[in-house]
Amino acid sequence: MTTICGQGADEFMRMLEEFHGYRAPGVLIGGFMVDLALERRSGGGFFEVLCETRVCLPDAVQLLTPCTFGNGWLKLADVGRYALALFDKKSGAGIRVHVDTKKLAPYPGIREWFFKAKPKIEQDTDRLVREILDAGKSILTATSVQVAPEFLGPRKKGATSPCPSCGEGYPVENGDRCLACQGKKLYV
Amino acid sequence: MTTICGQGADEFMRMLEEFHGYRAPGVLIGGFMVDLALERRSGGGFFEVLCETRVCLPDAVQLLTPCTFGNGWLKLADVGRYALALFDKKSGAGIRVHVDTKKLAPYPGIREWFFKAKPKIEQDTDRLVREILDAGKSILTATSVQVAPEFLGPRKKGATSPCPSCGEGYPVENGDRCLACQGKKLYV
Repeated sequence: MTTICGQGADEFMRMLEEFHGYRAPGVLIGGFMVDLALERRSGGGFFEVLCETRVCLPDAVQLLTPCTFGNGWLKLADVGRYALALFDKKSGAGIRVHVDTKKLAPYPGIREWFFKAKPKIEQDTDRLVREILDAGKSILTATSVQVAPEFLGPRKKGATSPCPSCGEGYPVENGDRCLACQGKKLYV
Repeated sequence: MTTICGQGADEFMRMLEEFHGYRAPGVLIGGFMVDLALERRSGGGFFEVLCETRVCLPDAVQLLTPCTFGNGWLKLADVGRYALALFDKKSGAGIRVHVDTKKLAPYPGIREWFFKAKPKIEQDTDRLVREILDAGKSILTATSVQVAPEFLGPRKKGATSPCPSCGEGYPVENGDRCLACQGKKLYV
């Protein structure tokens, strides 16, 4: 039986539909990526995850590890590659896993989806999901990495004060007013 | 009984411990914020959420709405204010909810926590959680907003090609090589 982080693929797909809203191929592949990273890591210390894309993959990490966007253990560096690194929180040593396009030849449906060769509407999702489950970790490559210092260390939590302009609490390190009052346009 | 989006506060705290890792005061307040935004919105169309901080609050949104970071329906504009806007996906009309510091006077523990007046280690977490449950939505203010155009519309999904330098798939709109190969340092 195909498993993803110790649970059946069906169970993982149920979780991802509930959390992500639909059976996204990218989150399913992401499940195998997290599985491979956890399998290859050494040591049992606390880890964090650096995700190289904001699309889909963060949800696999949030579902399968303790790292979430809100708790700060999931870091993002959106360079648009379908890759993640699971690394030791203290040392920064970790395992990077990416979708290896050189390994996609036996899976034309995955290749087509990955390179967006067909409009979504023409995609055969059932076939794509079957290919992803068949492929499992065989389309991935894992390498040892050392995460850059910028992604290490606890999240900064500086002082908070009421913004003299809008009155709401804001991080004083952002300046004499909050960034919204400095001109970042959120609402019109 | 105190409820958060229709479920008991105890049940929500169990969910947040499981997802977020611990009973974070910020996510608990975030639960009441999502509840208030859902209560005040009009119309029943699809909505998205704009979150004004990356700390804690995104996890309340991800737990209580269909909007996640990975599916793109949770948008982030990290201006550091503890606020979110739940808005109609098409029109951008929505309800913004923020923690209203003018309403914190009856809750010294929340005030202390919000302005980080005491080191975390000296905080009385049980008392803080009790105050948050007592306060519920009374410390929040909701206003009608129109979200800026920048946060509307579907996530761009342009063409993906193998990067001529690292060979991994990347969004061609990023340039002739992927951003990592252009110099963004993720690993050392």
